[in-house]
Amino acid sequence: MPTFSRLTDPMFGSPPVLDILSDAGTVRRMLAVEAALARAEAQCGVIPESAAIIIEQVCAIDAIDLDALAQDAVAAGNLAIPFVKQLTAAVTARDAEAGRYVHWGATSQDIIDTALVLQLRDALQEIDAGLMAAGDACAVLAAKHRTTPMVARTWLQHALPTTFGLKAAGWLDALRRDVARLDTARSQLVVLQFGGAAGTLASLGDDAPAVALHFARALQLDVPVLAWHAQRDRLVEVATTLGMLTGTLGKMARDISLLTQTEVAEVSEPAGAGRGGSSTMPHKRNPVGCAAVLAAAVRVPPLVATMLAGMTQEHERALGGWQAEWDTLPQIVALAAGALRQMGEVAAGLQVDAARMRANIDITHGLILGEAAMLELGRHIGRLPAHHLVEQASRRAVADGTTLRDALARTLAEDPSHQGLLDDAALDRLADPTRYAGQSTSFTDAAVAAWRDMRAQRSNA
Amino acid sequence: MPTFSRLTDPMFGSPPVLDILSDAGTVRRMLAVEAALARAEAQCGVIPESAAIIIEQVCAIDAIDLDALAQDAVAAGNLAIPFVKQLTAAVTARDAEAGRYVHWGATSQDIIDTALVLQLRDALQEIDAGLMAAGDACAVLAAKHRTTPMVARTWLQHALPTTFGLKAAGWLDALRRDVARLDTARSQLVVLQFGGAAGTLASLGDDAPAVALHFARALQLDVPVLAWHAQRDRLVEVATTLGMLTGTLGKMARDISLLTQTEVAEVSEPAGAGRGGSSTMPHKRNPVGCAAVLAAAVRVPPLVATMLAGMTQEHERALGGWQAEWDTLPQIVALAAGALRQMGEVAAGLQVDAARMRANIDITHGLILGEAAMLELGRHIGRLPAHHLVEQASRRAVADGTTLRDALARTLAEDPSHQGLLDDAALDRLADPTRYAGQSTSFTDAAVAAWRDMRAQRSNA
Amino acid sequence: MPTFSRLTDPMFGSPPVLDILSDAGTVRRMLAVEAALARAEAQCGVIPESAAIIIEQVCAIDAIDLDALAQDAVAAGNLAIPFVKQLTAAVTARDAEAGRYVHWGATSQDIIDTALVLQLRDALQEIDAGLMAAGDACAVLAAKHRTTPMVARTWLQHALPTTFGLKAAGWLDALRRDVARLDTARSQLVVLQFGGAAGTLASLGDDAPAVALHFARALQLDVPVLAWHAQRDRLVEVATTLGMLTGTLGKMARDISLLTQTEVAEVSEPAGAGRGGSSTMPHKRNPVGCAAVLAAAVRVPPLVATMLAGMTQEHERALGGWQAEWDTLPQIVALAAGALRQMGEVAAGLQVDAARMRANIDITHGLILGEAAMLELGRHIGRLPAHHLVEQASRRAVADGTTLRDALARTLAEDPSHQGLLDDAALDRLADPTRYAGQSTSFTDAAVAAWRDMRAQRSNA
Amino acid sequence: MPTFSRLTDPMFGSPPVLDILSDAGTVRRMLAVEAALARAEAQCGVIPESAAIIIEQVCAIDAIDLDALAQDAVAAGNLAIPFVKQLTAAVTARDAEAGRYVHWGATSQDIIDTALVLQLRDALQEIDAGLMAAGDACAVLAAKHRTTPMVARTWLQHALPTTFGLKAAGWLDALRRDVARLDTARSQLVVLQFGGAAGTLASLGDDAPAVALHFARALQLDVPVLAWHAQRDRLVEVATTLGMLTGTLGKMARDISLLTQTEVAEVSEPAGAGRGGSSTMPHKRNPVGCAAVLAAAVRVPPLVATMLAGMTQEHERALGGWQAEWDTLPQIVALAAGALRQMGEVAAGLQVDAARMRANIDITHGLILGEAAMLELGRHIGRLPAHHLVEQASRRAVADGTTLRDALARTLAEDPSHQGLLDDAALDRLADPTRYAGQSTSFTDAAVAAWRDMRAQRSNA
Repeated sequence: MPTFSRLTDPMFGSPPVLDILSDAGTVRRMLAVEAALARAEAQCGVIPESAAIIIEQVCAIDAIDLDALAQDAVAAGNLAIPFVKQLTAAVTARDAEAGRYVHWGATSQDIIDTALVLQLRDALQEIDAGLMAAGDACAVLAAKHRTTPMVARTWLQHALPTTFGLKAAGWLDALRRDVARLDTARSQLVVLQFGGAAGTLASLGDDAPAVALHFARALQLDVPVLAWHAQRDRLVEVATTLGMLTGTLGKMARDISLLTQTEVAEVSEPAGAGRGGSSTMPHKRNPVGCAAVLAAAVRVPPLVATMLAGMTQEHERALGGWQAEWDTLPQIVALAAGALRQMGEVAAGLQVDAARMRANIDITHGLILGEAAMLELGRHIGRLPAHHLVEQASRRAVADGTTLRDALARTLAEDPSHQGLLDDAALDRLADPTRYAGQSTSFTDAAVAAWRDMRAQRSNA
Repeated sequence: MPTFSRLTDPMFGSPPVLDILSDAGTVRRMLAVEAALARAEAQCGVIPESAAIIIEQVCAIDAIDLDALAQDAVAAGNLAIPFVKQLTAAVTARDAEAGRYVHWGATSQDIIDTALVLQLRDALQEIDAGLMAAGDACAVLAAKHRTTPMVARTWLQHALPTTFGLKAAGWLDALRRDVARLDTARSQLVVLQFGGAAGTLASLGDDAPAVALHFARALQLDVPVLAWHAQRDRLVEVATTLGMLTGTLGKMARDISLLTQTEVAEVSEPAGAGRGGSSTMPHKRNPVGCAAVLAAAVRVPPLVATMLAGMTQEHERALGGWQAEWDTLPQIVALAAGALRQMGEVAAGLQVDAARMRANIDITHGLILGEAAMLELGRHIGRLPAHHLVEQASRRAVADGTTLRDALARTLAEDPSHQGLLDDAALDRLADPTRYAGQSTSFTDAAVAAWRDMRAQRSNA
Repeated sequence: MPTFSRLTDPMFGSPPVLDILSDAGTVRRMLAVEAALARAEAQCGVIPESAAIIIEQVCAIDAIDLDALAQDAVAAGNLAIPFVKQLTAAVTARDAEAGRYVHWGATSQDIIDTALVLQLRDALQEIDAGLMAAGDACAVLAAKHRTTPMVARTWLQHALPTTFGLKAAGWLDALRRDVARLDTARSQLVVLQFGGAAGTLASLGDDAPAVALHFARALQLDVPVLAWHAQRDRLVEVATTLGMLTGTLGKMARDISLLTQTEVAEVSEPAGAGRGGSSTMPHKRNPVGCAAVLAAAVRVPPLVATMLAGMTQEHERALGGWQAEWDTLPQIVALAAGALRQMGEVAAGLQVDAARMRANIDITHGLILGEAAMLELGRHIGRLPAHHLVEQASRRAVADGTTLRDALARTLAEDPSHQGLLDDAALDRLADPTRYAGQSTSFTDAAVAAWRDMRAQRSNA
Repeated sequence: MPTFSRLTDPMFGSPPVLDILSDAGTVRRMLAVEAALARAEAQCGVIPESAAIIIEQVCAIDAIDLDALAQDAVAAGNLAIPFVKQLTAAVTARDAEAGRYVHWGATSQDIIDTALVLQLRDALQEIDAGLMAAGDACAVLAAKHRTTPMVARTWLQHALPTTFGLKAAGWLDALRRDVARLDTARSQLVVLQFGGAAGTLASLGDDAPAVALHFARALQLDVPVLAWHAQRDRLVEVATTLGMLTGTLGKMARDISLLTQTEVAEVSEPAGAGRGGSSTMPHKRNPVGCAAVLAAAVRVPPLVATMLAGMTQEHERALGGWQAEWDTLPQIVALAAGALRQMGEVAAGLQVDAARMRANIDITHGLILGEAAMLELGRHIGRLPAHHLVEQASRRAVADGTTLRDALARTLAEDPSHQGLLDDAALDRLADPTRYAGQSTSFTDAAVAAWRDMRAQRSNA
């Protein structure tokens, strides 16, 4: 059976998350779920201990034929039906009696969903590690460049001076909120799915609560208030949370890719063998990491919408909405994990050209210090008049090819009512960008401290 | 200036949330923000007390011309620029000196975003009230029908017996998780936006931290670690959280609308003057509440995707991604609030036909008790043989137009090896649906208890 | 390298389209493109004939190592860079001179895009065949059931009589429009991508136009006005067109799945070994075909949004928007093709229970003929009074458990002003649903004729 | 009743399209539809001529109370029910007899959908005019700058020389395909919706076909094969087509906004009073037109997904999917029309700095001519060796701060085997960017000619 995900989507390589989400990774967890179910049922006296032992042994071997499974799942309508058939056959081959107790009392979706929860828990652990690494890299950038002057850009135009540290701190603080959201989503997620065919566990009679408890414990999951076959918000929350993480990473990639532009050249992605070359233009180093992350940031939001749209599920098991999740949620996880890995590498190896950052501030001939001038003048003549005066001087500076400082000096000199407002020393102070970076350093320090506090609290917990 | 939202989208009427989100509601909050800023700056000695007093007075009057505002915002590129012009003119008309200090040190986005946070806080409070009401209505349904038998349906087919109480408990438990998510989102949301033109608050020099503190306190907001002009996750989390709430409501609407079908007729929406009539078919009562909610459940997920996609914002202020939020987030809030109001009314007034629920169980002639039979037989002959035997009896019942009970009796009788497996009394027990509702009552009770606990904890807090 | 598309998305099996879209299918077409390029350049004297011969030979062998390709593509940022490296190495191994001319004058995206066009052309041909088959099956249903009475349902409530033929004709006519749209999209799509590194074909000097012409001719493609590296509407039109096709199929699946409900039971999906069974409920036949199609109808619209969102591409080659297409467009194609195959099978094997359709009409005791009564009465007393009178009679029929016919007779009898409006024969005529099917047969016939005309025209063309 | 679309979404002002889509515009067309229906029915003898005259008179007056309409639509579930009530009351007030024939034989959705078709036809005509204007502006730019050298940028990095004319020609050619798509969508769209309550027109008996014909003719619409109450592809095609148009505009806006960056400064948006100013930075001119278009390009794709998702409609009238269209399609139309107007203005008034374009080519010290050098060298030593050699020279140029020309000269001189490959004159030729613009001029001319041909054909048609 063909697959088409490797070459049409080569941006994200093979992080551990892809192993977790692979066919083999799925089946391995389904086997673990069936083994835990049999064990719990034996513990509660629902099935014979001898049957549970054999079921556990067969589940440990992983004798599932993936090709046949994929083939039969089409007609069956889901994966668990042919899976249970194969597993039952394998157990029966060892012991006919034990074969009778495979999947006892459960429904297909119990197995599929619980295995999915196990996959997601494992994937989120990898993502957590990646998030720590990416955040640490940003914290290093923020701390190192806490006073490195660069220009702030709004609407893609030069605005005012800021620091590169503050830009990195903005990324960092967003990642910190992503950590908290992922913790919340994970704590909601790690529950058993166990309701039987109608969500009532009727198949287990009075043993149901005890079996559920042992079943969940064996998998280190919580027991939810009730089965959630058609209430999918826990899974959707994983999707939305990873959607926000991907958005944060996309924002970083947008910033960094814009800074790598030939005309800007303030940062560049880490170099590496075969990385970002062009087949026809040997001089180029393409921001391939950013491209991968930006592609993920385009792709993930609609996939999150799919998960949300799938929530309107029919009665006790859905027709369309459930099935729409199957390939969508793993894609979201893989894209978020891949984007995280790419952006972690970019941030850790980012080449920062502080000299170019300083030089770029000057290309507007001091125009970006218009606000400083306006505020200084505003203290004397009011905000709006000052606004008009600086606007006029700015136009003059552009027209004459001079600096704002000089244009302002001349404009002030021409109007007797403005005499003495700003002397030469005051004008020089206004023209120094490093004197107008405001709270950039203290904001940066606060963001780094907040990240480190979070790190410390988590390692204590 | 024309508007086109009233008639093309008539499903949601005019809940209080629409007042909060209206043009007037927006401008009122922008005025409150400017007033709080002036007050904070006067407290810190940044602007004269006399100026702050006049600014506060003018802001309290609300003299903004909405039509001119809307007109000028097109060329300006955002709402705050012409707003500040109008406000400054109005203040200056009273006192030229005070006019100099309007909007001192802030940037357009500081005002727009902080006013938006105030709107969202108010809207979320309305939504919280609606959520409590809807949840309470579900809790009543769950408690009242904790033992009301109905059929569970999977893939739109009759599956096994359940209770209507358990169905309502499933809705209820999902709403409980929505409450928790909204609490989390709100706690993240209620922060000041205050960074000035580049996010550094350079315009306020060393006074910046103190001004920010007083500014936030006046609006009962928190001060964030740093300005978030281009880091939009807090707003996006409101969107995703309301997206999940709308999904939960959509699931309820899907269930209820399917139950109102002429052939099913187990519930109907509350009646009301002019409600759900048809212009040509006088006998009909259309589930108009469910339709509105399902429409919201179709519309909200892509709008959430818009918010997520908008996160990849350029540098310190974005070009496209920010502007894409302006109409999108209010739509999400309005749709979620409208859907909540509709579903709250539907749940509170839902007409439940328990007799019809019981009667519908029987239309499959006992086939839905196949699992009970299979499990009982499985105890004797193993799960797979039992599965085949019951499948065979089911087909026979369908072919002969008889009940599963009788078909099973005959099938067992024909095979000497099955003699004595199930006697008549055992078959009768299997044919009683109320004996096969499993944990439905205990699950229902647990969900109601969890909701009440949450209610109690919140009223204590 | 792991893949995760087979088991997490088992609904669509392995139609020929998956072979076309597979890794091997992609690389095979990239080789065909490189071979055609070399051939065209030799024909125009740009590269030696001997080099072209060897390049063609190596391309025919398909010696590409897919695993290495997938691995190297991550760092390179796209598939073509490592592909050209492997191909060049293979050609050079045969003839160092020929190795110099591999990929001559082209850019990576020229190869990737042109190979994609070839894939899509092949896939659309398969889809066209599937569309003909599905449409033919609907035409058969429409023609066979042109007078089979069933109830029309609006807002999920019984409305008026219609025929099953007209329902099928609605599906059919929508599929006919899908055929026309796919023809248009395909005619736009089949163009060469050939612009070199900057879209100017500077690398080929004055030979560029002639090479492009021969290149396109060899692949049976058109030469576009200019290169479209960052203008992606042709690909997006394939996506939107398949999006609408999937929507049409989703509508069919929605209708059919609702008709399969246990309480409605007017149609059922074709039976088949292992098809739609339940692991725990042996009596069930799940509408698995409809579920797969409905899942596709949930998943495809957001993927189309991804393609549309990806259009805002930067300059001459994009950073994110292009890469976002790579996995998205094949998914849309595979989902549409899979849904088409599923729905074709369902339509061709649909089991229709005309007796049940007729019986279901009666479950509202004639209420659905309210409009007929209202119109008949309206002729005498005006539309609104008639509306009120029938509404009153309908409520009475429901309350008394009688038919609308009888309730109406009694209601009329009670009001002297209504005496003689409708005699018994007139009431009986009103109560016959087959007399109130309007134009259902002529509409059905027209739709079938339109489909057949389209078929005839296409087979002539 | 509050509305919230004016200030939260101020980017698009008030083009004529908003009048068409306004509440008043909707109701005006609903009245036109009812008038045409009455006229057609009188012509066919279904209702009295005297009634039709009065209905037409009342419809011409437009006596509908919009506030009451909006209010009542909430409970009714759609707009047409209270609309017909108001209209009937108004007609009845004039003539009780005529009041009986208002809306005769039609269903709510017939009126809503046909009025929507009329709105869309009018809106598409406005959009067509805007598209011609925008295309003409691009054609002027392309023709004027057919040989204006600028750098092509791939992955946001300088690649090779191109011309600004070719860039504009790329926009132009995409707009030309949008014209064709809109023509196709419009020709599909302009059909009557007329099926009565169940799509059978049973209410009109044998008069149905004649009434439909006259009805359609009065509105200059086509009669479709059958009613399309739940088959929405014609409307969705309008959405997808406008989605692609918005994508094309978004690509233009992306390019232009990147070119306006302070560091690039090759173009700027037209200046204008109050346009693109900043409240705190008087020197700035923000690309507000591009921002509005980019915001539309973020918002429209998910709205198109909503329309596609809404297609899976239930039976003869939907529950959710239909209602989801009501506000969504007008938003798509308004956003596309607004983006078109903005981009038309930007293109028509774009300020192009050709000198800066030429200067920016040189900032890589000739590195962008690496391909020219590689191809020239490749003719002598093969593509891959040439690639390596130029890569080496490029690195050397960067390291030494010299030009590629000089670095290449030195690199070649060092290796005896490369002696005499390129003499000084050849190196100078390679260093001239205007000699390496390939087919940019001929491609540009072809695109302009294709646009003009299309214009000529349409004005002839």
